[in-house]
Amino acid sequence: MEKEKIRNLEVCFSPANFPFYQNKEESIIVIVDILRATTAICTAFEHKVAKIIPVATLEETYKYKNSGFLIAGERDGKVIEGADFGNSPYNFMGNAVKNKTIVITTTNGTQAVEMAKNCLDIVIGSFLNLNALCEMLIKQNKDVLILCAGWKNRFNLEDSIFAGAVAEKLNNEANYSLNCDSAMASVDLWQIAKNNILDYIEKSSHRHRLKKLGLDDVLEYCFTPNITKTIPVFKENYFVEISKL
Amino acid sequence: MEKEKIRNLEVCFSPANFPFYQNKEESIIVIVDILRATTAICTAFEHKVAKIIPVATLEETYKYKNSGFLIAGERDGKVIEGADFGNSPYNFMGNAVKNKTIVITTTNGTQAVEMAKNCLDIVIGSFLNLNALCEMLIKQNKDVLILCAGWKNRFNLEDSIFAGAVAEKLNNEANYSLNCDSAMASVDLWQIAKNNILDYIEKSSHRHRLKKLGLDDVLEYCFTPNITKTIPVFKENYFVEISKL
Repeated sequence: MEKEKIRNLEVCFSPANFPFYQNKEESIIVIVDILRATTAICTAFEHKVAKIIPVATLEETYKYKNSGFLIAGERDGKVIEGADFGNSPYNFMGNAVKNKTIVITTTNGTQAVEMAKNCLDIVIGSFLNLNALCEMLIKQNKDVLILCAGWKNRFNLEDSIFAGAVAEKLNNEANYSLNCDSAMASVDLWQIAKNNILDYIEKSSHRHRLKKLGLDDVLEYCFTPNITKTIPVFKENYFVEISKL
Repeated sequence: MEKEKIRNLEVCFSPANFPFYQNKEESIIVIVDILRATTAICTAFEHKVAKIIPVATLEETYKYKNSGFLIAGERDGKVIEGADFGNSPYNFMGNAVKNKTIVITTTNGTQAVEMAKNCLDIVIGSFLNLNALCEMLIKQNKDVLILCAGWKNRFNLEDSIFAGAVAEKLNNEANYSLNCDSAMASVDLWQIAKNNILDYIEKSSHRHRLKKLGLDDVLEYCFTPNITKTIPVFKENYFVEISKL
């Protein structure tokens, strides 16, 4: 019997480190920005958004707005001027998103998409679609690189523990080896966090940033696993539900 | 009574993230490259080396060699051609280093020094000088930024757990707040590692790289705390023992 090939799972803690991953073009890239871009995107697809177009710059975002597109976005946690959506994942629900195309720009998340454009595939991960995402990755059986959006090119806790949750699953349930120190660290941090994520994340710096912005109420939602089975995947220049590919 | 000012301790997991630390020019930078540059440098100062000149490029290293300097260095873990020292911290002992000036270049560590040159002060950290380093930092009472050399601009476990050891001490024993998520993560990882560092580090990727290179025997030494009280500090273009400043 042929021995099954071992796949690699790597974790990149911030976009600044991404250029130094050698295997990225042969990997499926999972983009993670738990607070809040990828949580909002998963929410929008659960609520039947048609397409999400991620753009890196404000300039490009406003070009889309001038062409009649709905836009959403934040910089440093605050809603950008002229946005059609508020700053909470709760805004991406119901008729506000159903069958719509939304252009989105965020401080960290959309820059990460920009960097990963030459890779095998880009998908969106959040606690909301954790199990569905892992099942899909195991089925695809390709190398996986989890790209944490982080905070301004620095490590953050919330994205890293999510990476640990995925790494643990792919390591336990399938033939994935954790082939880098950051993958191993993320699993260790996830072990500490998993039994009470909100308590653990209480100490994170971004959690305090959200508190200041009056966005405390989104925290519990952002860390709730498996609310949706949707998996947003990047195609041409937009995200679409994987079943629509 | 005037309230004592709270100092910040930050941790940067790799040189790629360093440009994104806003407070670096007001901070004492602790450079960490446990396997093996900063361990070797602490060893050399314990054995009375006069100066260590860190250089980033091979080209510059060979210029020094041509001018009659002793050179030491590695790339990808292997000794560079023409080096006067082997690849183990054990080579930096006794008469080989006493009163000498040594030029050193390494894959990760010396690039980190290059990046930090505009900061308040640069000092060298390793498990070998852990307590002495922390005592000095507490006495200085300035903001501290621990710069992990990492591995090729990626996170590594050995430098990060050392950062956690320093962060824990400065947080417990002095008025330092852990003001970034990477500092908090490094303390969490250190909690897991501290009771059996060698067992913990067994899983790290660099440990396996060393094994391949036949450098297994340096591991225990590199993780032995408080062998020396020496603190190498950067001045002009070289490191010197802090008492010689």
